[in-house]
Amino acid sequence: MQAIEKTTLNKAELQALAAAALCTFGIGKDLAGEAANILVLADMMGLHTHGTARILSYGERMEIGGITANADIRVRDVAPAMAIVEGNNGLGPAIGAVALKAAMEKAAQNGIAAVFCRGSNHFGPIAPYAWMAAQEGFASMIASNATTTIAPSGGREARLGNNPLGFGFPNPGGDPVILDMAMSVVARAKIRDAARAGQEIPDTWATDADGRPTTDPHVALKGFLSPVGGYKGYGLSLCVDLMTGLLSGAAYLTHVRSWSNEPEAPQDLGHTFILIDTKRLMPAGALTERMNDFAGIIHDTPRVDEAVPVMLPGEREMRNLAAAAAGGITLPADLVEDLRRLSARA
Amino acid sequence: MQAIEKTTLNKAELQALAAAALCTFGIGKDLAGEAANILVLADMMGLHTHGTARILSYGERMEIGGITANADIRVRDVAPAMAIVEGNNGLGPAIGAVALKAAMEKAAQNGIAAVFCRGSNHFGPIAPYAWMAAQEGFASMIASNATTTIAPSGGREARLGNNPLGFGFPNPGGDPVILDMAMSVVARAKIRDAARAGQEIPDTWATDADGRPTTDPHVALKGFLSPVGGYKGYGLSLCVDLMTGLLSGAAYLTHVRSWSNEPEAPQDLGHTFILIDTKRLMPAGALTERMNDFAGIIHDTPRVDEAVPVMLPGEREMRNLAAAAAGGITLPADLVEDLRRLSARA
Repeated sequence: MQAIEKTTLNKAELQALAAAALCTFGIGKDLAGEAANILVLADMMGLHTHGTARILSYGERMEIGGITANADIRVRDVAPAMAIVEGNNGLGPAIGAVALKAAMEKAAQNGIAAVFCRGSNHFGPIAPYAWMAAQEGFASMIASNATTTIAPSGGREARLGNNPLGFGFPNPGGDPVILDMAMSVVARAKIRDAARAGQEIPDTWATDADGRPTTDPHVALKGFLSPVGGYKGYGLSLCVDLMTGLLSGAAYLTHVRSWSNEPEAPQDLGHTFILIDTKRLMPAGALTERMNDFAGIIHDTPRVDEAVPVMLPGEREMRNLAAAAAGGITLPADLVEDLRRLSARA
Repeated sequence: MQAIEKTTLNKAELQALAAAALCTFGIGKDLAGEAANILVLADMMGLHTHGTARILSYGERMEIGGITANADIRVRDVAPAMAIVEGNNGLGPAIGAVALKAAMEKAAQNGIAAVFCRGSNHFGPIAPYAWMAAQEGFASMIASNATTTIAPSGGREARLGNNPLGFGFPNPGGDPVILDMAMSVVARAKIRDAARAGQEIPDTWATDADGRPTTDPHVALKGFLSPVGGYKGYGLSLCVDLMTGLLSGAAYLTHVRSWSNEPEAPQDLGHTFILIDTKRLMPAGALTERMNDFAGIIHDTPRVDEAVPVMLPGEREMRNLAAAAAGGITLPADLVEDLRRLSARA
């Protein structure tokens, strides 16, 4: 492993840089700022694979028409507590930011709200959306469908995406609990890492092209990712696709076009944002008390290994976020250079 | 294995028998009928561990005050699209039926609704609720917390329940898709079966009392159930507890009293019913078309084993339900005798 040169920026610097880079592709200033905010929060949480580095690949797709930079993103009310966001092939995190705002407004009015997005693209990680919702006292369930990488249980062809599902729970005055999980045992990148390192993989990670478990990462890369918990993960991934793709009016299953194989084709992804206004359920003080009691019970669990603490979902990301807010965000120098180069374009 | 004598009843007969049995414990006629309906549907779907057989254990708890037969189950509106059901330690499926009805009314008005139950008990399986919602065009997410059986990742003491989470998606004119999953790899009953049969278990099912994987079912029964997918299942179970227990104002984590160790103590379980009116998203005809296309894509997946079809979540249960509607419900003769004995009490 050779050392990678790093650059540290503070939040405002990275936010300005990311927003400026997005603007040069033709995204309006406000939306670019909101989309940049999602990606910067991702970097701050340590989720660098879904952070500002994505601006480069989003940009490539905007340049060849796979994503429409100046799309008309429109919120259409369908019920007092429900809306559809017509993404019109716009940038995923811009569509996500519009949907989150609409869901917060409607949940504040009605206690709960659902906003379904269609005509969308990769919208970044879920954790930043869940965190923003939690800051305003909203619990959330947020999900998206994705390019197919998982075969149904008993099948040997990819028909389902690694459809991420997230939950967020506010803790007024403290850190929210945020779960942001994809449906495969591991990400494809981990299998690629093993292939590069010449290592075997556990036979629970993926199957060969015939749907049979394999320990060979090269064989696995030609096969399918295994869903967590076998048919349970298959079922969850399928339900996320029904919720985000089918109900929203977006593409689903194999109707979703592949980002890598057809980068110029609109993917027509779907997302769902369900927000719950916790203030309607209990006062903020009572919620804080219960959340702290809950965290205490989890943290106090006797440990299997004394050196390894028992943690809440998202706890690591919340620590990263606080550290980045205080000490800046450290990114590969190449990435920062690329963002500077992009943002300096006329 | 000795053969078990069986009795076959039609739906109306079992419904009348189950409702009459529940009435003799002091439950009002209407609520007993609604609770019986949940349990009868469970039997019809083949979910016999959560069907009318439960009336015997519910009854034992009602007799010693662990469940309050004549509880005042009350719906309290907290927002246009949100309500809390005060279960007051009533029978779980009665509380669940009240909550489902309130959620359907509110979702019809607002597009989406959430109903949180507290002061509840074991409410049966999720599939019957999801099926009833789907019959009226509602997609659903339904969940409950439960007695602790799962240790957090890295912990060696049970702090989380096998908290079931379910999703339902209507298919007007056809069968809905219904996922009803608990968070452990397998149910405790499967480990008990292996212990009885003198067989080893896979090391992914459970851990010993120190939180370390084991293949010995006897050791596993003194330890903890393993969550599906390791820390992902742990995270999901925890989020279900936050959603159903913490947000509803019910007990959560180790505050939930054990059904088996303290049968006379109220458990104070929490449930959440989130319903979405699909008619606000698309006409029923369009939904049917998309659901059938979705099912077709899944069913047409090339098979790993030609003899094993690729199925949708809940497909087996929907076939069982149709078969039971046509040909009756076959139950152990002992169970039917017990229900007859109970219902004949003055």
